[in-house]
Amino acid sequence: MNEFIKKLYQIETPNVLIDYQRLVENIKSIQKIANDNRIKLRPHIKTHKCLEIARIQLEKGAIGITCAKTEEALVFARNGVSSITVAYPVVDEYKLIRLISTCRQLKIELGIVVDSKYGVRNISKIAVKFEKMVKIYIKIDVGLHRCGLQKDNPEIIEIAQSIKKQSYLEYAGLLSHAGHSYAAENKYEVKDIADIEKSNLIHVKNMLNKAGIDVPEISVGSTPTVLATEDFNGITEIRPGNYVFMDNTPLRLGLISEDRIALKVLATVVSQNDEYYIIDAGSKILSSDTGAHGSGIDIGFGHAYPLGASDKQDDFLVVCRLSEEHGFLKRNKTINLSIGQKVLILPNHSCAVINLVDYVTAIFSDGNFQQWLIAARGCSR
Amino acid sequence: MNEFIKKLYQIETPNVLIDYQRLVENIKSIQKIANDNRIKLRPHIKTHKCLEIARIQLEKGAIGITCAKTEEALVFARNGVSSITVAYPVVDEYKLIRLISTCRQLKIELGIVVDSKYGVRNISKIAVKFEKMVKIYIKIDVGLHRCGLQKDNPEIIEIAQSIKKQSYLEYAGLLSHAGHSYAAENKYEVKDIADIEKSNLIHVKNMLNKAGIDVPEISVGSTPTVLATEDFNGITEIRPGNYVFMDNTPLRLGLISEDRIALKVLATVVSQNDEYYIIDAGSKILSSDTGAHGSGIDIGFGHAYPLGASDKQDDFLVVCRLSEEHGFLKRNKTINLSIGQKVLILPNHSCAVINLVDYVTAIFSDGNFQQWLIAARGCSR
Repeated sequence: MNEFIKKLYQIETPNVLIDYQRLVENIKSIQKIANDNRIKLRPHIKTHKCLEIARIQLEKGAIGITCAKTEEALVFARNGVSSITVAYPVVDEYKLIRLISTCRQLKIELGIVVDSKYGVRNISKIAVKFEKMVKIYIKIDVGLHRCGLQKDNPEIIEIAQSIKKQSYLEYAGLLSHAGHSYAAENKYEVKDIADIEKSNLIHVKNMLNKAGIDVPEISVGSTPTVLATEDFNGITEIRPGNYVFMDNTPLRLGLISEDRIALKVLATVVSQNDEYYIIDAGSKILSSDTGAHGSGIDIGFGHAYPLGASDKQDDFLVVCRLSEEHGFLKRNKTINLSIGQKVLILPNHSCAVINLVDYVTAIFSDGNFQQWLIAARGCSR
Repeated sequence: MNEFIKKLYQIETPNVLIDYQRLVENIKSIQKIANDNRIKLRPHIKTHKCLEIARIQLEKGAIGITCAKTEEALVFARNGVSSITVAYPVVDEYKLIRLISTCRQLKIELGIVVDSKYGVRNISKIAVKFEKMVKIYIKIDVGLHRCGLQKDNPEIIEIAQSIKKQSYLEYAGLLSHAGHSYAAENKYEVKDIADIEKSNLIHVKNMLNKAGIDVPEISVGSTPTVLATEDFNGITEIRPGNYVFMDNTPLRLGLISEDRIALKVLATVVSQNDEYYIIDAGSKILSSDTGAHGSGIDIGFGHAYPLGASDKQDDFLVVCRLSEEHGFLKRNKTINLSIGQKVLILPNHSCAVINLVDYVTAIFSDGNFQQWLIAARGCSR
């Protein structure tokens, strides 16, 4: 057992480990896609909720961040991030007061998404109250069938016109999220989804242009579609989130190799029976997600590798079942574990794992560790 | 809209609401089962992780608490709980040092579960080191097939003998958890599971008695089995957890009526399309659990009722899909919602919901609110 493995045997489990080198490589790699295509990168921080990681993203060239929730935005706003898009239809006045007044006070560039006149009305009301300019993106549904307007909905034009009339709203353009790409079969299907997303947005752009309305920005999100897109022409901004860590989902889609996964869960075997090894990582650390947006096929809840196994990790145990504080590893003929032994788990959905822990352990290539606070953990409001 | 509903419209969502009166009724009702049957109640606090609720349980007659993890135990140990069983095979020396030394210092009665000689050896080593008596329960697998020894495994006798030989271990008896009861079809099946659990434990007791080993305690857990058991004869202690809140699972099993569910998630409609209403409660507040231990049938992720709907809530919308921060309510013909409107969700698994929030909003019958800290949230180690 080498010194590094010995050191990992001294930290308590379950513990979320971040491979710093892989993290930085992932950040640089997506930044390169943005730079090469002359588009802006505004990463979604819901994946990591961590100030240290946002700082690396901004240092490498991100123009700001994307958040899902008001409370997330406030954490980053209060910690030096100067441009924030809340890619969520914030409709509640109390939330808008907190968000808009804080961004006014801290001189933060703020964008919010709308898909209803109700949203435009409420945001405008609070923006006027605090005399704060707010950029507004109209959300277009490109197939996830969650938020957003359908591409031929004439309300898009009405909403754009309505935004343009408000004194404290700046009409920014269109925004979409092809979250259904996580449920694709393979990378070719992801590419098709990305193509449809782009053509739908260009369709809406043309419709707006015909009505005399320009479209300054076309902002798209999702790590799978960014990885699968070949031609970004027409798009001005990308907002992937998951790419910092990756997980079993882009791996399953054939979009990445396993050596890009930067987040793993360290766990200990605490019991065993004829069918399973039982580990101390359950749904309260791995989550019960099989993928993002309820996607995922019957792949279990993660892949477990014995800690210190050879680099050529071609065999693993499937985390086939979860209790809250226990994981069930289905035994096979090639991997033998014993009670007290440690395993590393590649999870299905790293964004869900992060939201379950207050700290992660960042591991540097020299073998040193650092504890990073998940500053926006649990910020669901 | 009455004053109370108006008040709920002023709190930000998603927000976990606890009905204080129902909570206390649930606590009293299970305490009554324990008292009527002259058995001890040692509730599992992993469901609530909240000091306020543990205090109510102890005040009503609980003899101590049960925890899953060391960190949970430490939170309650440092806050006045004097008798704690960690119903988990704690095998890691670092964890055992923290747990045993703290309980020694604070003069807390400590119980731990074992199902291996490895566990006995490590606990004994640390107990000797800190000169702290630790009660040891041998875990018996009664069908969940997770931790625990099979009823006919001769190792049970060896482990019991080994415990009795250690100077700082007190052999306490047998412990089991019929977690597979959550996956049952109905309450009759739950009753069968409870009967099998009891007969298996009595079988092991007889086996140990024949080997000259007494069995001071027979401790069983799980809310469904406690609710379904008619005859507790032979059992000395029950350790249910979920009963404080209940959720869709005991409801689905026919073990309770809906008016016993004390935990609900308040959410706001933020968007809509032809198929769904979209709410601001997703998997990061409801969890992706369909039930406990990976159980649950295809029932979606919760039932949503319009806030302020009539008391006779016989119609609801199914939360049929989740993103991290969005829930999809499948539209029906009878319930019409609009953006900005609030809904109450009955979740599938309240233990998973609690672990996602730092605070809950306790609501008293006079309409007043209180914020309660989830003091042991995220204590997965």
